[in-house]
This record gives sequence, C-alpha cells and structure tokens, in this order.
Amino acid sequence: MSARILLAGHGSVGKAFHELVAETGAGKVVGVLRRAGAWLDENGVAPGGTLLAKRQHLSVVEALDKLRPDVFVELTPSNLQTGEPAAGHIRAALERDIPVVTANKGPLLRHFDALTTLARERGVPFRFEGTVGGSIPVMNLHEFCLPGNPVTRVDGILNGTSNYILTRMAEEGLGFAEALKEAQELGYAEADPTADVQGHDAAAKLCILANAVLGVPVRFEDVHREGIQSISAGAIRLAEREGYAIRLIASVDGATKRASVAPRLVPHTSTLNVRGTLNVVRFTTQHAGAFTISGKGAGGKETATAVLSDMLHVLRASR
Amino acid sequence: MSARILLAGHGSVGKAFHELVAETGAGKVVGVLRRAGAWLDENGVAPGGTLLAKRQHLSVVEALDKLRPDVFVELTPSNLQTGEPAAGHIRAALERDIPVVTANKGPLLRHFDALTTLARERGVPFRFEGTVGGSIPVMNLHEFCLPGNPVTRVDGILNGTSNYILTRMAEEGLGFAEALKEAQELGYAEADPTADVQGHDAAAKLCILANAVLGVPVRFEDVHREGIQSISAGAIRLAEREGYAIRLIASVDGATKRASVAPRLVPHTSTLNVRGTLNVVRFTTQHAGAFTISGKGAGGKETATAVLSDMLHVLRASR
Repeated sequence: MSARILLAGHGSVGKAFHELVAETGAGKVVGVLRRAGAWLDENGVAPGGTLLAKRQHLSVVEALDKLRPDVFVELTPSNLQTGEPAAGHIRAALERDIPVVTANKGPLLRHFDALTTLARERGVPFRFEGTVGGSIPVMNLHEFCLPGNPVTRVDGILNGTSNYILTRMAEEGLGFAEALKEAQELGYAEADPTADVQGHDAAAKLCILANAVLGVPVRFEDVHREGIQSISAGAIRLAEREGYAIRLIASVDGATKRASVAPRLVPHTSTLNVRGTLNVVRFTTQHAGAFTISGKGAGGKETATAVLSDMLHVLRASR
Repeated sequence: MSARILLAGHGSVGKAFHELVAETGAGKVVGVLRRAGAWLDENGVAPGGTLLAKRQHLSVVEALDKLRPDVFVELTPSNLQTGEPAAGHIRAALERDIPVVTANKGPLLRHFDALTTLARERGVPFRFEGTVGGSIPVMNLHEFCLPGNPVTRVDGILNGTSNYILTRMAEEGLGFAEALKEAQELGYAEADPTADVQGHDAAAKLCILANAVLGVPVRFEDVHREGIQSISAGAIRLAEREGYAIRLIASVDGATKRASVAPRLVPHTSTLNVRGTLNVVRFTTQHAGAFTISGKGAGGKETATAVLSDMLHVLRASR
C-alpha cells in the first residue's frame, strides 16, 4: 500500500517534493498544509491540486490527528531565530509517533538536542538530510557510509550564493556589489542578501553538521563568523595570482570544538575549491584521511531529492 | 557477543583490517587463512598472531565448515583473469548462508551476476565496497544515499598510480619514464606497472561500478581502454597552458552502455581534477545533477576502512 504523506509547506522545495513523489510513485500526499489553508484527499492531492481543490482550515496538529499519516514532511519557511513554528510541528508529530522528515534548518539549529532526543526516546524516525548541502548526501554519508571510521573535523562551502559571487568576482574581475547584483538578477541571491553574504546561512548549517556528525553541541552564537561583503576585487586578484581562490569556508573541529565561517585562501588545486553555486563538504576521518563530496547545494528540486531519500529511509525502517 | 570473523588473505589490506577490528572492538577474528596455513583461535587471533601461533592446514571450505563464522572476509590476492580462487571461496560461504565482505576485484569482475544472484536468492549479505575507490564510499553512497534518484552515468579517476604519474609530469615537467620511476621508488607503482598505467585496474573497477551502480552488465573486454604510457611531457605542457589537466578518466553511460578508460583533457576547475594518488567518482543523477566524491583510493588501511564499514552493515542487518 502506498505510503500516506502529510506535507506542511508548499514553497519551492515543497512543490518539487510533491512533484517528485508523484513522478516516482514513492507514496501519496494525502494532505498539504499551506498558510492559505489545508488540502486533504485520501486519493492523493495532485501537485497542482492546491490551486484548485477545496480548502479547509486545519492546524498542523489537527491535520496530524485527523490523518495519522505514515510520515510528516515539514517544509515550512525557516525561522533561524526561534525555529518556530516548525519545531512545534515536528514535536507534535514525534509525540504522536509519526516519523518526520524535514529540510527546515531553524528547528535543528535551535532545538537539535530536544528534537533528536525526543525522537530517539520514542524510537520514531526523524531525518533532516535536506537541511545542509541541498542535494548532497551529508547526513546519510556520515550515518551509512562511515561506520567504524569516526569523523574528526568538517570543512566546507555551505552557501552557494556567496560562492557564486566570489567565483564571478575572480572570473570577471567584478567588484562585490556588481557580482551581488548579477546573482540577484539570476535569482541566486535574495533581495536582502544578508543571510547569504554575511555567513548566517552557512553558520546555521555548520551548527547542524557539528551536532549531527561530530556530536559537538555548537550553537549559532558560538560560531566565529565573517562574511564576504568586504572582500575586494583587488584581494581576489592578488590571491588568484598566487594560485589561491578566496572561498567562504565553514569549519568545525571535533577536538577543539571551535567553529567558524570566514573567507579563506584555498589553493586552486584543493578539492574544496568548487565554483559557482556548488557546495562542498570535506569530512576528515580517523582512519582514512579526508573525503570530499560536492554537488548542487540549493534549488527546490535538488533539495527535494534529499527529502525524498530521507522519506524512503523512513518507510524502509517502518516496514 | 562479539562477532566471529573468518579472514582469508593477510596482505596489506588483510593485516590492516585485522588491526582495525582489534582497535575498534568491532568483532574478533577467530580464523586467519594464508597461503602458509591457517591460524584458528576462538578467543581471537591477535593481529601479529599469525607470526607466532600454531599453524594448521585447512582449506577455506574446511575452515568455513569448522568455524561457521558470522562473517567471511575475502582479501586474498586478486586475479583479474579468472576471479579464482576468491570466487570459489565466496560461493562456498554464500552457499553456507555465511555473509561475505570482500575488497577483491577479480570475483566481482568475472562473476558479478552469478555471485550477486546467489547472495540475493539465499538472502545472504554480500558486500564489496572496497573493490572500487579504496576508502571512498562508492557502493554505499549509491545504495544508501541516493534512493529515489537514479544514477545515469559514472565518471571517475579510479587508479591512483597513474594519477600520481600524470600529476608529477605536470608539476615538474617530468617525462613518463621519470615519473613512473619516482612512483615506483615511493611504492605507489609496482615493479610491473602494466595494470596501473595501461588502465587494466581502472577498467576492472569501472566494470564493477557499471554492474553495481548502473545495472549495466559491462565486461572487461567491452571497455575501450587506452593507457597513459604514450602521454608526453609536451602534451601535458600544452594542455596545462590552456587550463586543462590530462587525466586517466573512466566513464560509463547508463543509456548508451558504453564504457571507456582513456586519457582525457579535464578543465583545471573541474571537480574531477584531483591530484596525486587521490581517486574521484562522479555520479550523474536523474533529479539532482552530479555528485563528486574524492578521497584516498588505495592503501591497506584506507581500503580496510571500507571493509570494516561493510562488515558493520552485515552485522547490523543480521542482528
């Protein structure tokens, strides 16, 4: 029987996930919750269905109680300050023993310990691959591919927008403002680019990585953070001439527990030196040196693949 | 209770695996089979123990019957022509419903379908992460991290020796013969470097990848193969000047089913352009573009971490 999915949030990731579920037949979305209302259909809400079908007014808790879905997928807009209301949604599902998948950074950033403890104590699957690195399997690589080989340090480029800006500054000799404007025109940067260029987004992801992969309880406020807004075209030119790129590198060390997001000189030849909107994560391990994985770090469909992969893990586990 | 391991083969990977098991407490090696004899001890054979303890004469089949281990680890020297005797060892274990882990390319290259079918039909775990990419989680990345997102193409650098030679030729302007000599002196290349520099090793790994990840039954003889032995210092200089490295790239496409190992021009900025003895694998996927993962592609300890990770999966599954 097809898995019954309750989906909260229908932005770019939510819509793409909804379409992927329909396309792959991985389950059926029996409820969609948006700010504008709730769409329920036991036969499956079609991806475009929320534009047409009858709307109800239901809270997330009411929908969880009414539908008792096989999995709850939390993709509402992220709030990095409080993690709410997503954290409340996730808590409500876990308390009802309903497995949860999310790509929402806020609740993991602000309530990592409380939520993962609740899930563990109740034995309910709770997965959040999509919170870090978009499509790149970071959490699952750690969980499934490195047993017996502890990760001691994580470094990476976790924000595609700032990496795009730095790449274009180097390629075209643009200044920061010009490159930012280009990124905004192409839809890579938001009208208010603060979260991307000042490193807030990367710092939030780094905290989740530190907690999930290293077991180090780094909080957002603990991260030493510098953005890229004061990097000049001249500084980039100088670095490039000597064989280096300037990259916004997020790092956390398991031994010192120090975490930082800051512009760094990265040799052109380094596996960390990815370009454009790519993200990259390097795990340093105890027994086998470093692994580096890169891929598309953002985008609705890309992040939706991470959510889908988590959902398939949940369904496998509960079979 | 500690998992009981029977280990066949005690070369660099076998010894390193034995030490890792002792170090991590992941199980106990109750039997070691080498060409020189068999060492059995229900309390665990110590990693150095085969030098000292009493030796018996037992075949692999006799040892399997006598010990009935929880897992059989096949790390005897690889024979790429026939896959024997390792394939016979693996078959004997699977027929006795004993889970198998191997890093031995030969049996997978020559008997992929027969061995994986036997394992599947009997429901016995059979894992071979260590056959490709040394420490890099390639099989497990595919199996556990990309559900719902089919891989459509694989490209990579699967031989660290030839990559080291090409890297040194570019860095130092060395000719092929000089760079090979250096690699031999450092222990990266064997006295007979044919398998590495003529692409046999990479082609064997590519076949295993094609079968395991794409489900395409590529045989060794199907791989279009060119080595690096005729690459000149001049060709590399020319490529470097235009922003390219020359790399021995292994590729297989799921749609055309074409497989090749050949020197290619790779842009310096490509994530495939790793240096020295690193290996790299790029999975192109249906829904999320490409992922690229790099790491140490050879070395006893590095490959042993892949074997250990497989063994932990096996023990988890049979719990």
